[in-house]
Amino acid sequence: MNPNANGLHRAFNPRTVAVVGDKKQTDYMWLRNMKGFRGKLYSVQVDPQELAGIAALGVSNCPSLKDIPEAVDYVLCAVPRAVAPRIVADCIEKKVGGVALFTSGFAETGTEEGARLQGVLTEMARKSGLTLIGPNCMGIYNPSLGLCNGADQPVGAGGPVGFISQSGNHGVTFSLVAARHGLRVSKLVSFGNAVVLDSPDYLEYLAQDANTRAIGMYLEGVKDGRRFLRTLKSVAAQKPVVIWKGGQTEAGARASASHTASLAASHQVWLALVRQGGALAVDSLEEMVDTLKALLFLKPPSGGRVGLVAATGGQSVVMTDAFTKAGLEVPLLTEATYKEFAGFFNIVGGSYKNPLDVSSNFTTVELVRRILTILEADAHVDALGVELSAGFLTRRWQRDPQFAERYLAFLEELKGRSPKPLLVIGTAGHKEEAAVELREKLAERGIPAFPTFERAARALKRALDYHRSRAGL
Amino acid sequence: MNPNANGLHRAFNPRTVAVVGDKKQTDYMWLRNMKGFRGKLYSVQVDPQELAGIAALGVSNCPSLKDIPEAVDYVLCAVPRAVAPRIVADCIEKKVGGVALFTSGFAETGTEEGARLQGVLTEMARKSGLTLIGPNCMGIYNPSLGLCNGADQPVGAGGPVGFISQSGNHGVTFSLVAARHGLRVSKLVSFGNAVVLDSPDYLEYLAQDANTRAIGMYLEGVKDGRRFLRTLKSVAAQKPVVIWKGGQTEAGARASASHTASLAASHQVWLALVRQGGALAVDSLEEMVDTLKALLFLKPPSGGRVGLVAATGGQSVVMTDAFTKAGLEVPLLTEATYKEFAGFFNIVGGSYKNPLDVSSNFTTVELVRRILTILEADAHVDALGVELSAGFLTRRWQRDPQFAERYLAFLEELKGRSPKPLLVIGTAGHKEEAAVELREKLAERGIPAFPTFERAARALKRALDYHRSRAGL
Repeated sequence: MNPNANGLHRAFNPRTVAVVGDKKQTDYMWLRNMKGFRGKLYSVQVDPQELAGIAALGVSNCPSLKDIPEAVDYVLCAVPRAVAPRIVADCIEKKVGGVALFTSGFAETGTEEGARLQGVLTEMARKSGLTLIGPNCMGIYNPSLGLCNGADQPVGAGGPVGFISQSGNHGVTFSLVAARHGLRVSKLVSFGNAVVLDSPDYLEYLAQDANTRAIGMYLEGVKDGRRFLRTLKSVAAQKPVVIWKGGQTEAGARASASHTASLAASHQVWLALVRQGGALAVDSLEEMVDTLKALLFLKPPSGGRVGLVAATGGQSVVMTDAFTKAGLEVPLLTEATYKEFAGFFNIVGGSYKNPLDVSSNFTTVELVRRILTILEADAHVDALGVELSAGFLTRRWQRDPQFAERYLAFLEELKGRSPKPLLVIGTAGHKEEAAVELREKLAERGIPAFPTFERAARALKRALDYHRSRAGL
Repeated sequence: MNPNANGLHRAFNPRTVAVVGDKKQTDYMWLRNMKGFRGKLYSVQVDPQELAGIAALGVSNCPSLKDIPEAVDYVLCAVPRAVAPRIVADCIEKKVGGVALFTSGFAETGTEEGARLQGVLTEMARKSGLTLIGPNCMGIYNPSLGLCNGADQPVGAGGPVGFISQSGNHGVTFSLVAARHGLRVSKLVSFGNAVVLDSPDYLEYLAQDANTRAIGMYLEGVKDGRRFLRTLKSVAAQKPVVIWKGGQTEAGARASASHTASLAASHQVWLALVRQGGALAVDSLEEMVDTLKALLFLKPPSGGRVGLVAATGGQSVVMTDAFTKAGLEVPLLTEATYKEFAGFFNIVGGSYKNPLDVSSNFTTVELVRRILTILEADAHVDALGVELSAGFLTRRWQRDPQFAERYLAFLEELKGRSPKPLLVIGTAGHKEEAAVELREKLAERGIPAFPTFERAARALKRALDYHRSRAGL
C-alpha cells in the first residue's frame, strides 16, 4: 500500500483547505481559484499589508496553519522559497492531508541554493511521511468540490477523465480546452518537480477512483523507470492511459530541466516504455483531447473501413486522403447500397461511391436521414465520418433554423442506435467562431466533433488500435 | 504565345459580365456573388418565373447573350448540362472574352451522357478558340473589380497571392480563410474538369500578372505532364509556387475522378515532379496558408537557429520539441547574452537558456522590450519565435489595456527593424475566439501569427528550405 494513499485521498477530496501566502501582487490568484470551493477555506498570511485584501474576499485568515481551529486536508502553499521549509514544518505538525507547493525556485533553476532548499523539503517530507505535491506545481483540481487550480475552470459535476500533469499550465489548459470539447475532468493534479510523490503515485490514486474512466498524463521525466512501468501496466489494464511527453528532443529536454528539473531519457526508449506499459503516446494537447474523445465517446469500431460523407466534392477528395493516410480504409460499398443510391441520389454535382459528396443532395433533412441510414447499414462500413461545414450550417440556419436543428437531432439518434462509431468533422473554413459553436452544440448531444479530417482520422485510428490490442490480450 | 492569353486577360479583368441561368432555387447565388462588381452586369435567363427575382436584384436581364448590347468579357454559365452547348455556341458567336461553366454533370459522373456532352463542349471550344474555363467549376475571383465567385469574399484592394484551384470549394474557401490570416488574393480561378484550359494556362497567366507575388494551387490531376513541368519550372523561377494535391491515395484518387474526372499518377511521381519544377508541396489548406504567409511576410532567414520565447514553462518545453522536430535548431545563446540576462532575469518561475520561459518576467512592456531586444541581437539566433497566449493577453487586456497594445506595437517595431524573421504563435488554449481576434490584430500590423508551435515551425522550415534552394541556383 502506498504510504501516501490516505494523504492523497484527503488532498483530492478535502473538507478544509488552506492557502498559505497568497498576495495582492498576483491578484490573490489562489484564493480566487478556490472561491467556488464547497468546503471550508482559510487563508494563512502574516503580512499585515495583505490582510485587508484577504478580508475583502470574505476569507478567514490565520497567522499560522497551526492556528486553524480544525483539521486541514489540503494546503496550497505560495510563499517565497526561503519560507517554504517553515510552512512544510507546520504542515507536518498540523498533520494535514497533503500540501501542494506552488512555490518554485528549486532544482529547476540550476542554482545551489535552489537545490539545497529542495533537498531540505524532500528530507522533511520523507521523514515525516508528509504527502508533498510538487514543488513548483499548481496542485489539485476537483470540480465536484469546486476546488480549482486555475482561473475559469468549470465546477460542478465532474467527468470521466483523470489528468496528471508535470506542468501546471498544461494541466490547467487541458481542463479548460477539454471542457470546450465536452470532455470533463474527474480529478486533476499538477505535480512539478516530483520530489516526494511522482507520477506512479497519482496513477495509482486515479486507478482506484471510480469516477475516472480514462487517464491523461503530461510528463517531462520519471524518477524510477521500473516502478513507472510496473504501475503503468497495472493501471492501463484497468482503464486507458494516454501519455504526452514533453522534452522529446535534446533541446526540449534542456527546457524541461529548466522547467521541472526533469532528466529525460531518449525518446525512443520512452516510447518503448509507454508501449510496453499498454498506454497510448500522443504528441500535443490537441492529440490528447482527440484521443480521449475517441476512447470515451466513440463506440469501439469492429474494423478500419470508413464510410465518408463530405459537404462538397473538393472536401470529399482531401477527406478521403486524410483517412487513408491515417491507416484506415475508404472501401467501395456493397452492390445493394449502390442500387439504392442509384434510385434517387443526384450525381450532377454529387457522388456516392464512397466518399459521398452530398453537396447537391443534403437539401432536406429527409434526404440526410435517407442517405446516412443507407450508408450506416452498409456491410462494408465499420465507422462513419460525416463532415458538417460550419459555413453551410450557418447559412442554412439563417434561412431555415429547423434544418440545422433537425440535422443535429438525427445525428444524435443515429449515434444512439448504431453499433458503429460516428465521427463528425465540424470544418471551419473562415467561420472559425461558428465552428466552435457547432462543436459545442454537438458535444451537448454527446457527439464528438473533430475540427479537421486529419485529427478525426488519427483519433479513430488510435481508438481502433487500442481496442484491437485490448482484444488481443 | 498561348492562344487563350487574350481571352483570359479579358475574363480576369472584365468590364462586362453576364451570368447565364441563375435561378431562385439557388437563391440567385451568382448574381449575388457579383453584386459588388464594378463593371456592367447582365443576367441571361429565359424562364419567365425567374424574371421578377432578377429584376428585384436590380440586374438587367436579356433573353440571350446575343441580345446584350455590348461586348461581354466574362460569362458565368449556370444552366443545366443539356443546355450548355447552346450557351457555348452563343459565347462563340458573341466573341466573349471567356466563359466559366459552373454547369456540372459531365465526365465526373462516369455516365455516357456526361462524357458525350463534355466532348461536344470541348470540341466546340477548341475549334473556335473559345476560352472555356471548367466545366464543373466556380470561375474567377478578382477582388479589385468586385468580381466574386463565392459568398462573403472580400472586395477592394487585392493582395499578393494568385490562386489556381481545380476545386471550386477549395478555391473559395482559400480566399476566405487566407483573408482572415491577412493574406489577400490578387486573382483566383477555379477550373474544374479542365477540358480546354488546364493549370499551366492559368500559371502562365498569373506569372505575368504584376500584382501576383506568389501562387498557390489546388490540383487533382494534370492533362499533360511535360507541359506542366515545363511551365512550372519557368514560373517557379519567377515567383514561389505552392501546390496542394488532392487524390494522393488510391481511394482519394477515386474521389477526385468523381469530382473533376481527374486521373491521378502515383503520389511519389507527383512529388518528384513538383520538386523538379521548383515548387513547394503542401498537404492541406492550412499548410497552404501557413507556407504562403511564411514566404510573403517573413524576412528570409539566414539559418535555422531559432530563439524561442514561451509564455510558461510547460509551453517552453513543447515549443522547443516542435521547432526541433521540424528540423530547426534551438541553440544555446552567447555568453554575452547570458551575462546580460543574469543581471536582471527572474529565474524563479522563469528561465533564459533558450527557450526562454518568461512567465515571471513579462510583467511590464519595458521588460518585454529589454528581453526581446537582447534575444534578437544574439549572434546564435537566426529567427525569433514568440508565443503570445490569447488567455494571458485577454487577462492583461482587461486589467491593463495599455500593456497589450504596447506589446503588439513593440512587436511591429521589432519586425520592422530586425533583419531576422519574427514569428508570433498566438496560442489559443480554450480562448479560441480570442486567439482569432489576436491573430487578426497582428495581421493588421503585418505580423504573421500561427496558431500552434507545430504550424509555425513547419512554415519557418519551408521558408528556410525555399530560400536556401533559391540561393543554390
